[in-house]
Amino acid sequence: MGENSSSFLRSNLNSIQQIIKIMDIQYPLELIGTFVFAISGALAVRDKEHDLFGAGFTGFITAIGGGTLRDVLLGSYPLVWIGDVYFLYAILLGVLAAFVFPRFLIKLRKTMFLFDTIGIGFFTVLGVEKALAFGVRPEIAAIMGMFTAVMGGVIRDTLVNEIPILFRKEIYASACLTGAILYLLLNYSGLERDYNLLISISVIISIRLVAVKYKLSLPRLE
Amino acid sequence: MGENSSSFLRSNLNSIQQIIKIMDIQYPLELIGTFVFAISGALAVRDKEHDLFGAGFTGFITAIGGGTLRDVLLGSYPLVWIGDVYFLYAILLGVLAAFVFPRFLIKLRKTMFLFDTIGIGFFTVLGVEKALAFGVRPEIAAIMGMFTAVMGGVIRDTLVNEIPILFRKEIYASACLTGAILYLLLNYSGLERDYNLLISISVIISIRLVAVKYKLSLPRLE
Amino acid sequence: MGENSSSFLRSNLNSIQQIIKIMDIQYPLELIGTFVFAISGALAVRDKEHDLFGAGFTGFITAIGGGTLRDVLLGSYPLVWIGDVYFLYAILLGVLAAFVFPRFLIKLRKTMFLFDTIGIGFFTVLGVEKALAFGVRPEIAAIMGMFTAVMGGVIRDTLVNEIPILFRKEIYASACLTGAILYLLLNYSGLERDYNLLISISVIISIRLVAVKYKLSLPRLE
Repeated sequence: MGENSSSFLRSNLNSIQQIIKIMDIQYPLELIGTFVFAISGALAVRDKEHDLFGAGFTGFITAIGGGTLRDVLLGSYPLVWIGDVYFLYAILLGVLAAFVFPRFLIKLRKTMFLFDTIGIGFFTVLGVEKALAFGVRPEIAAIMGMFTAVMGGVIRDTLVNEIPILFRKEIYASACLTGAILYLLLNYSGLERDYNLLISISVIISIRLVAVKYKLSLPRLE
Repeated sequence: MGENSSSFLRSNLNSIQQIIKIMDIQYPLELIGTFVFAISGALAVRDKEHDLFGAGFTGFITAIGGGTLRDVLLGSYPLVWIGDVYFLYAILLGVLAAFVFPRFLIKLRKTMFLFDTIGIGFFTVLGVEKALAFGVRPEIAAIMGMFTAVMGGVIRDTLVNEIPILFRKEIYASACLTGAILYLLLNYSGLERDYNLLISISVIISIRLVAVKYKLSLPRLE
Repeated sequence: MGENSSSFLRSNLNSIQQIIKIMDIQYPLELIGTFVFAISGALAVRDKEHDLFGAGFTGFITAIGGGTLRDVLLGSYPLVWIGDVYFLYAILLGVLAAFVFPRFLIKLRKTMFLFDTIGIGFFTVLGVEKALAFGVRPEIAAIMGMFTAVMGGVIRDTLVNEIPILFRKEIYASACLTGAILYLLLNYSGLERDYNLLISISVIISIRLVAVKYKLSLPRLE
């Protein structure tokens, strides 16, 4: 696309251009995403026999797990949260928020769910980009994108001894993988990055929202 | 051995030489081993509440887990499956086979078991060799060989919330460790690589087959 | 402190100086700590359906898990136990001791508990120092210190399908984190390393002992 971006895109250019201003603030968005993942991680163990420290630890693992796994697999050092301490502060704030306002946040669970869904879309595409920048093949980059988004939750669930979300929920990781592949296709077809980010992230979010609303899931192995 | 290889070996030289032609095709064998591990991983979650994506993910983890752990522990980058995308295709084929022919493959479970057993023997010795080539001491190389063969299954079982195979089954990882140590002893005694591969892999396979047939297991801690 | 070390410290200088001779033997202490962790890891699966190999494997993971995770997260290669094979021998001795004298060691469980508590204090501070030497920020170093001490146990519990100790026990990882932060504060205030080690390790041990004696735990998330 790029020069030849579809008429659909052109007709929506104004509103899209407003939205893509967001992309200028990618770094703050990463911090916010980390903050939201930390909240959802800390709240996830609320019904279990975990003390405050356990909840904080779980929030931490949820927030950094996916990106950490991606970077360790790529051999990309220093890890994001080790090289930039603001990610740690974003996590501490998220855990603190979960401690201080648990009821408020749980009442907000639809908002939280929406944030989490935006988060997985966003981190998927950032993960794909980071892997590509590292020089791996697109097939590998797609997996790395999905890992970035979902493996924090998988590690969290494994630690608290639950069947990982990946295996239970309506279409979740497969939405991320679909979005990652779409991003790669649009990228190689020449679409500008900002449009590509918007489209791919929107597709991930849409698949996830539709799947949850209509309780869609993939078939099982017979 | 080497120059002084035993008369037993000499007398079987012809048949052995035919078999060791196999070693010329080490790379295809690695791909086949990965393919088989992916099938067994995907089929392992068949009775659980996993959808197709979960089964594919499990096949993937089973196939790459051991080698990935070995390479991350050694700091050997890029990881095998990241540097060579054909391993990913072998996994995709394995997962696809598990989706399309599950009943056929389960009927073949004796064949699959045999393939899996050959697989752990083969990957143990390859893991030892890779670690040695990386310059670690033989004691460490033996552990790395065993990890290569069994840790994919251990990670898979941990994710799906089962007691890892390592802790449950008849002699399994200990067969790999025994074969790894044997390979190292024969290696330092000067035996040619091809013979050493054949002997060590055969010993692993034999221990495992005998243990399963006669339900042998190591004693427990009192 | 340092030049201005408190009168309390001065008045206890003689006895402290005797104790800090211990610090000249840091390396043997690390090996002994590894040995003790291996024993407690191997004994931890005594009631489960684990054979001798499974117990040995669990002892191994418990002993190396924390330091391995720290070094993989930092990208510090070679890992301690891969670069120095004596750690492996310390683990083998610990596992062997657990096999040969399980009843004796279990009778000694108060002694073992004390050793384990000293161990987590000691490894926390060593982990902090290693991370600082690697050039990370103090906030990160505190986390690395705690990880060094507790993550071996966390990985062990996850593998044997139990809720990790971190989430169950009286104040445990939080004692390590407190000691790690204290070490950093004293370090930046200029206190000599030997005194700092003694104080920080003592605080970790004291918190843990008091928490266990009086069954103290942190509050839960409401």
